[in-house]
Amino acid sequence: MTDKVEIFDTTLRDGEQVPGCKLNTKQKLKIAARLDELGVDVIEAGFPVSSPGDFTSVQEISKIVKNSAVCGLTRAVKKDIEVAAEALKFATKPRIHTGIGTSDSHIKYKFKASREEILERAATAVEYAKTFADDVEFYAEDAGRTGNEFLAKVCTEAVKAGATVLNIPDTTGYCLPEEYGKKIKYLKDNVVGIENVIISCHCHNDLGLATANAIAGITNGARQIECTINGIGERAGNTALEEVVMILKQHPYLNLNTNINPKLLYDTSLMVSREMGMFVQPNKAIVGANAFAHSSGIHQDGVIKNRETYEIIDPADVGVTESAIVLTARSGRAALAYKAKKMGYNLTKLELDIVYHEFLNFADAKKEVADHDIHTIMDIYRKNNRAIA
Amino acid sequence: MTDKVEIFDTTLRDGEQVPGCKLNTKQKLKIAARLDELGVDVIEAGFPVSSPGDFTSVQEISKIVKNSAVCGLTRAVKKDIEVAAEALKFATKPRIHTGIGTSDSHIKYKFKASREEILERAATAVEYAKTFADDVEFYAEDAGRTGNEFLAKVCTEAVKAGATVLNIPDTTGYCLPEEYGKKIKYLKDNVVGIENVIISCHCHNDLGLATANAIAGITNGARQIECTINGIGERAGNTALEEVVMILKQHPYLNLNTNINPKLLYDTSLMVSREMGMFVQPNKAIVGANAFAHSSGIHQDGVIKNRETYEIIDPADVGVTESAIVLTARSGRAALAYKAKKMGYNLTKLELDIVYHEFLNFADAKKEVADHDIHTIMDIYRKNNRAIA
Repeated sequence: MTDKVEIFDTTLRDGEQVPGCKLNTKQKLKIAARLDELGVDVIEAGFPVSSPGDFTSVQEISKIVKNSAVCGLTRAVKKDIEVAAEALKFATKPRIHTGIGTSDSHIKYKFKASREEILERAATAVEYAKTFADDVEFYAEDAGRTGNEFLAKVCTEAVKAGATVLNIPDTTGYCLPEEYGKKIKYLKDNVVGIENVIISCHCHNDLGLATANAIAGITNGARQIECTINGIGERAGNTALEEVVMILKQHPYLNLNTNINPKLLYDTSLMVSREMGMFVQPNKAIVGANAFAHSSGIHQDGVIKNRETYEIIDPADVGVTESAIVLTARSGRAALAYKAKKMGYNLTKLELDIVYHEFLNFADAKKEVADHDIHTIMDIYRKNNRAIA
Repeated sequence: MTDKVEIFDTTLRDGEQVPGCKLNTKQKLKIAARLDELGVDVIEAGFPVSSPGDFTSVQEISKIVKNSAVCGLTRAVKKDIEVAAEALKFATKPRIHTGIGTSDSHIKYKFKASREEILERAATAVEYAKTFADDVEFYAEDAGRTGNEFLAKVCTEAVKAGATVLNIPDTTGYCLPEEYGKKIKYLKDNVVGIENVIISCHCHNDLGLATANAIAGITNGARQIECTINGIGERAGNTALEEVVMILKQHPYLNLNTNINPKLLYDTSLMVSREMGMFVQPNKAIVGANAFAHSSGIHQDGVIKNRETYEIIDPADVGVTESAIVLTARSGRAALAYKAKKMGYNLTKLELDIVYHEFLNFADAKKEVADHDIHTIMDIYRKNNRAIA
């Protein structure tokens, strides 16, 4: 029996609020339609009160999304909640996402309030949101740096007020996986009424741990992950959707699954990167240009003998058509012979030795040896060979 | 009492073997000198037997490095070890890194050997390397997918043969942090003679977990992390040096420290990215262009009230001169007022309301509002204001 983990995509909210990533409504609709097709359970479509453009986008997205819930972000402020409810009125499954900062740093510097006031404002916001939508998610901002005891109190108030989902954000990307996992377990054990709600992980990547923290969260009882395509988002970004989906797929013993169609991952990554003008580094897990490229001689030799020697994911499973074996001066004879054979040259061991020598000269001058360069190298080899003969 | 974690940088070996990242000897010397200055304990300078260029680079690096140990990679092959020893002969602290695949997949498909043969080849390689260098690191390739019992056997043989460091690579980036941590603990408890050697973590990022796995390794007893600048390396890359260093710095309760000077991290990242032509995505942790950029109104407001509301690392600590507050259509009044003030405009609340309106129009047309655009916006505001008056 596997348990389902809900995928809450915030590419269009946390991802879109990044410098240079702003999208127009048409672009947002295109991405929302794709996220719906990809199988995400919830699309956070924007922060409706923040600008008229955001309001319109959330409203238009609500009209076209077929299967996913559509969610709008708000602060624990009446006006925000009213505007979000209005923006979501055409959604088949609307969700209002409201909440407040709960760490001492947020309470003291941002709200200049007391803990008691925060508890009250949290409950009031959820109650008010419930007058507009059945599905209300509560976030305890900076939960990562909030003491577990107070956090459980805030969450208990939110559940009592009607929250259906509790979002526990590591807003500053501070937590280590073990610590974040323990926090989720503490809430699972101490929040009154927790058995009726879903705990959600919203992790930031400031220390490179967003994916690991989300996984620690779900292995400790959370059942929703907030994430973005390509891991984009504020500062160092959020948990990458493609990473958590493939981790669950590659580790069946966890008995956790998602509704995502992995074959659309690569193309969705390209779409988001293109629309936002936000490039993906070549060594990005799952969707980077080099994610399935084997360049060293040792690795290439291994992959040629058996793909699983160095590859845990079949590239085709995420929509990449084949492992790209890229030849460089680091490549060994086996890789060269493999590529040459694919291009129609069956080399004897002796021929390979000579061609490999030519190949190294060529590869030293050119950083990468493309497929068509193999023809050039073979031409050089044949000419030299004739000269000798 | 804090314990030291050795930083083993493999930017010039695992990083450099990536498609498009090839460097010439001059470039490698420049980066090696910087790694030495940065404070890394070991520089893996190359794989000397792989090409004459690699041999020369390792030799030249050995001559100039002052404090770091210099390491050369080999397979468990006599020739490899002899060539590495020759390349390292000028190093003040030479280290030979030898080893063999230990997972069933590697033994069966790559070596077509038996487990007994692998044990013997491992011991023979370490013994032979010891005739050239005191400091010999042994790697058990694909340790991530090797059963712990057999892995402990191989490691015991390597220690008996004289290995000073045991490298436990998660070659395919398959492990979850908990699993990798347990593996390290198992070795700590079961390898004969383990108290005299250092366990090293070499993790790959295929599922986005390389950094988390390395941290799980050291919290379970490992004391060396193999990593690269910007997390580059085969496929999705390796553990990022800047991430593990800052994790230890930000979590003093772990009582673990490194010898790295974090103030050089940002500049080193730029140097490696430039020399290799390997760009860093804006949302890369610690060193990405957006790592310290706050763009949403809520976040900007928080940071302005108190930096620590949304920032756990002072950008200056890693060599970034100031938090880059980038204005976009998502920015709030507080951020605009803050920037405007920095540029010499002290706005009243009423003025701010009007200027903010101009700002939103401007920001809607342009994705980002640069500092100099503030002058333009103020000009527009003044002109409009005069027209009204």
